[in-house]
Amino acid sequence: MNKGVMRPGHIQVRVLDMAKALEHYVELLGLIEVDRDESGRVYLKAWSEVDKFSLVLREADEAGMDFMGFKVINEAALGQLTEDLVAFGCPVESIPAGELKGCGRRIRFSAPSGHRFELFAEKEQTGKWGLAEINPEAWPRGLKGMRAMRFDHALMYGDELPETLRLFTEVLGFDLAEQVVDPHGNRIAQFFTCSMKAHDVAFIQHAEKGKLHHVSFFLETWDGVLRAADLISMTDTSIDIGPTRHGLTHGKTIYFFDPSGNRNEVFCGGDYHYSDHPPVTWTTDQLGKAIFYHDRQLNERFLTVLT
Amino acid sequence: MNKGVMRPGHIQVRVLDMAKALEHYVELLGLIEVDRDESGRVYLKAWSEVDKFSLVLREADEAGMDFMGFKVINEAALGQLTEDLVAFGCPVESIPAGELKGCGRRIRFSAPSGHRFELFAEKEQTGKWGLAEINPEAWPRGLKGMRAMRFDHALMYGDELPETLRLFTEVLGFDLAEQVVDPHGNRIAQFFTCSMKAHDVAFIQHAEKGKLHHVSFFLETWDGVLRAADLISMTDTSIDIGPTRHGLTHGKTIYFFDPSGNRNEVFCGGDYHYSDHPPVTWTTDQLGKAIFYHDRQLNERFLTVLT
Amino acid sequence: MNKGVMRPGHIQVRVLDMAKALEHYVELLGLIEVDRDESGRVYLKAWSEVDKFSLVLREADEAGMDFMGFKVINEAALGQLTEDLVAFGCPVESIPAGELKGCGRRIRFSAPSGHRFELFAEKEQTGKWGLAEINPEAWPRGLKGMRAMRFDHALMYGDELPETLRLFTEVLGFDLAEQVVDPHGNRIAQFFTCSMKAHDVAFIQHAEKGKLHHVSFFLETWDGVLRAADLISMTDTSIDIGPTRHGLTHGKTIYFFDPSGNRNEVFCGGDYHYSDHPPVTWTTDQLGKAIFYHDRQLNERFLTVLT
Amino acid sequence: MNKGVMRPGHIQVRVLDMAKALEHYVELLGLIEVDRDESGRVYLKAWSEVDKFSLVLREADEAGMDFMGFKVINEAALGQLTEDLVAFGCPVESIPAGELKGCGRRIRFSAPSGHRFELFAEKEQTGKWGLAEINPEAWPRGLKGMRAMRFDHALMYGDELPETLRLFTEVLGFDLAEQVVDPHGNRIAQFFTCSMKAHDVAFIQHAEKGKLHHVSFFLETWDGVLRAADLISMTDTSIDIGPTRHGLTHGKTIYFFDPSGNRNEVFCGGDYHYSDHPPVTWTTDQLGKAIFYHDRQLNERFLTVLT
Repeated sequence: MNKGVMRPGHIQVRVLDMAKALEHYVELLGLIEVDRDESGRVYLKAWSEVDKFSLVLREADEAGMDFMGFKVINEAALGQLTEDLVAFGCPVESIPAGELKGCGRRIRFSAPSGHRFELFAEKEQTGKWGLAEINPEAWPRGLKGMRAMRFDHALMYGDELPETLRLFTEVLGFDLAEQVVDPHGNRIAQFFTCSMKAHDVAFIQHAEKGKLHHVSFFLETWDGVLRAADLISMTDTSIDIGPTRHGLTHGKTIYFFDPSGNRNEVFCGGDYHYSDHPPVTWTTDQLGKAIFYHDRQLNERFLTVLT
Repeated sequence: MNKGVMRPGHIQVRVLDMAKALEHYVELLGLIEVDRDESGRVYLKAWSEVDKFSLVLREADEAGMDFMGFKVINEAALGQLTEDLVAFGCPVESIPAGELKGCGRRIRFSAPSGHRFELFAEKEQTGKWGLAEINPEAWPRGLKGMRAMRFDHALMYGDELPETLRLFTEVLGFDLAEQVVDPHGNRIAQFFTCSMKAHDVAFIQHAEKGKLHHVSFFLETWDGVLRAADLISMTDTSIDIGPTRHGLTHGKTIYFFDPSGNRNEVFCGGDYHYSDHPPVTWTTDQLGKAIFYHDRQLNERFLTVLT
Repeated sequence: MNKGVMRPGHIQVRVLDMAKALEHYVELLGLIEVDRDESGRVYLKAWSEVDKFSLVLREADEAGMDFMGFKVINEAALGQLTEDLVAFGCPVESIPAGELKGCGRRIRFSAPSGHRFELFAEKEQTGKWGLAEINPEAWPRGLKGMRAMRFDHALMYGDELPETLRLFTEVLGFDLAEQVVDPHGNRIAQFFTCSMKAHDVAFIQHAEKGKLHHVSFFLETWDGVLRAADLISMTDTSIDIGPTRHGLTHGKTIYFFDPSGNRNEVFCGGDYHYSDHPPVTWTTDQLGKAIFYHDRQLNERFLTVLT
Repeated sequence: MNKGVMRPGHIQVRVLDMAKALEHYVELLGLIEVDRDESGRVYLKAWSEVDKFSLVLREADEAGMDFMGFKVINEAALGQLTEDLVAFGCPVESIPAGELKGCGRRIRFSAPSGHRFELFAEKEQTGKWGLAEINPEAWPRGLKGMRAMRFDHALMYGDELPETLRLFTEVLGFDLAEQVVDPHGNRIAQFFTCSMKAHDVAFIQHAEKGKLHHVSFFLETWDGVLRAADLISMTDTSIDIGPTRHGLTHGKTIYFFDPSGNRNEVFCGGDYHYSDHPPVTWTTDQLGKAIFYHDRQLNERFLTVLT
């Protein structure tokens, strides 16, 4: 039952070298730099997003994710969700408005999986990049590289998946849209959505808490995935796997790494979800096909390289 | 503010000749016949839909739409929405469960635009057609013709758009996602969504009440739109316009007619919507481009041929 | 029987305003300006062409085509073809090397249809634009607009089609690849190829001699045709028709006009031809479908607007 | 210099089990069975081919290729090429008309690489499958599986590449279209064309003579390659690699195996060639990228699994 969480709003990612990271996210993925703050963080957005920013890069000694934030529909929902988080037993921290430029107050909490998430109700809306507010064209001219359309979702590796499921479904009101279950009924992968998308955030069982598997951006077409693959080669960017399709979500995809080793995905297509849909379920004996639909086997790198 | 209306659930369309209609909707569009009832109605679904049916064909002397139904999340929401409709001043009729086979009780009402709509909370779920429930393949083999994925939306022509807007937004909890406004601020086109789609139902100002402009089905790709166009020619089906793109919604589209003269659309792509997005707005001086983005002018047929 | 004519090499087109023409051909079509000469002509190429140039623009008071040139395999073939043209009764003119910068001597002649053509054996090869000579990437970065791949063919309107057919097949060694014939067996459209393409040059019966219908450039994909259509709208360029498919050649296409009124086409796909293939034949009762496969009817503009 | 060899005409492939082979080539690749002969061979064609057949399957104890045949333009060319083969020192065998049903006399010879090839001038033309001879539609309805358009080329592994190059270019009149050269100038891959295609037959240096690497079929689009990949998974067909792109030829491709272990490719796009184009050249230090443009590294299987 939806409790007012609307969509992924932002993700803050640690990079080892800001200049190289911007070369990657701006020139290759085609995100747009929109702001910087005094702590040196750089704010980026993808062109179809109405909000001011969705990706925040922070230079640090170690790659990985600081936190991922979701936008909720209004202050009332934010208040209620805060109460519910506390009742669930989640330590909750309040981040004042403006700590991220253009973003209202944020409620930060840790999931049992070891990842930090945030909720917020307000963010400056700057509109779709490069399009007029009235009579907007089909797409903006001047986009670079892969022309990523939006920050779409992130996949986390961590443990305590059952408690994390309870948190995301019962407290935060997400649906379990897709899952992988083992013969004992244990869920080893759980994909959550707060809208029609096949996933807004996803978790895979992993002994170590709090790891980031990938940050994913949406493309419009399979031709766009090919173009992304070509650009990855032309720029000598480290590829993980693809172009291919997933069994889970059935999205068409390619994985690669940013210069700090954070895994990125760009993808298109995929299942749609409504709240009365039963979860799409894959079984562990078909795990290879669930992840890589064409190769039907996992590569070691996909399971072990995390940030 | 969402009030529990989830998605377009079905549309009942009148056809002059059932055999010809089935040739069209099954062989050409690729819908699947799933049931018939004693009154002679034929029930169809598109492959990616989880529900038992979405299109109901009824043989009659005149083409057009009988009603369009929306699925709501549960009985509680259905009850509340019924109360709200009555409070709004809408005459409400209750249709018992089973009147449409596999569908629960329906609350029927008329919009100020002159169209009949329904709400229901229960419908038999038969799952995606042709796919296993566990470890589902990417798409089913054996689809015919255009391989339409889902009944997506319908566009109505009628009057009293301001009251219809109040009904759909204030009472039913839809968002106004896209619109065309004239220099006086009058809305001549209003597209409503109850999810992430650019439209679940839409209205265009027209002097006569209760007319159907088109019933629309979703395809996955622009290649699919081309394939649809080719099939329209190969089957000597009457084309309206396309392949082309809309300015409104930016969807990629083709229009054509069923043998009874009801207009169909198949389309792919298009804008996505969240409830905090301001409506996408086109102005009447750009109406041609708003409707047909490439030709940038309307054809007479699009404005006047209705059922 | 092939006599050594290899491919369309260039076309010289008259434009009313060079600055506007360059805005069109460079910024919109994505051709690359490579040279200018003292007479003010501007030389352009498309990125995948190995030769220095393929489109020559000349500012003049009237739009249209000056001539179209074909590259032949070597000087021996050029000599033999010259002899054969003279024997056929074609007045032949010799243009010295360098009259077009980087191009060897050209043999110019007039077809019975009233169009001037040329043959040449030498042209400076500058290689594919933007790609390394060794280990070339899949495509060059930095292309503009539609990213046209090559000047592909041109379609002429004129009379004396039977004599023109004799010239192109018997003298120049082209194949008749596709045709439209009327009930009396008269050919009203004839498409000639000197390679595997469905047409390198084509003629449609028309009372007035020497008219240009369109200059055509090749794109790689149907997504590219959509992108072209979008750009045509974004730049307020005059559209003729499309995106659509042809019956003849089955190419996927869009037509539009340069600022001087010369019609352009960009297209992808289409039939392939070998010299033992019988001509693909359409009949005049299906002319609408032969030209516009989806609409199945001609628009007046396509038949009458010529330069 | 073209000597009248027109295109790949057929390939005879050995399979271990005919029923399984037909399931693969007919149901999965979408080829059409057109005939059988008394020796049990089965004749297949792809829909866009004008000739009666292009793939001949022969049941045998060992997989691999029996021979590949090229169609030449006429009997005169066949006679001259026979003389030239003999003069080159190739043992030449004459196969009478009708030994392959519908095919005229064939001249068979062995290349220095250890592969058997044939030339022929006559084969029954049955026209494109499923299309009317007059006013042909864009594609035939009723195609199965991948809907392969044509037998396109084959890649051989063997030695004596320099002599094989001499044979194909000097004697048979093919062009060297693409190549891989090592730092000493040795060619380790050579792709030959007799038309505009990037390759009609290709050779890679390998110690053992006469091995088949793959038989390749043409698709129209990158969407078609995805569809092929999906079908490979749905039918539990053994995949080699893909969807991906080649550096050499820049084609978009996927590799998989027939039930006998013969490797197949389906692909789309790729470079075009004219006889004055210098060969596209890759260097061995970039061999991985030359073969698999996205992964930029070879897999062992691609180099060693041959039939």
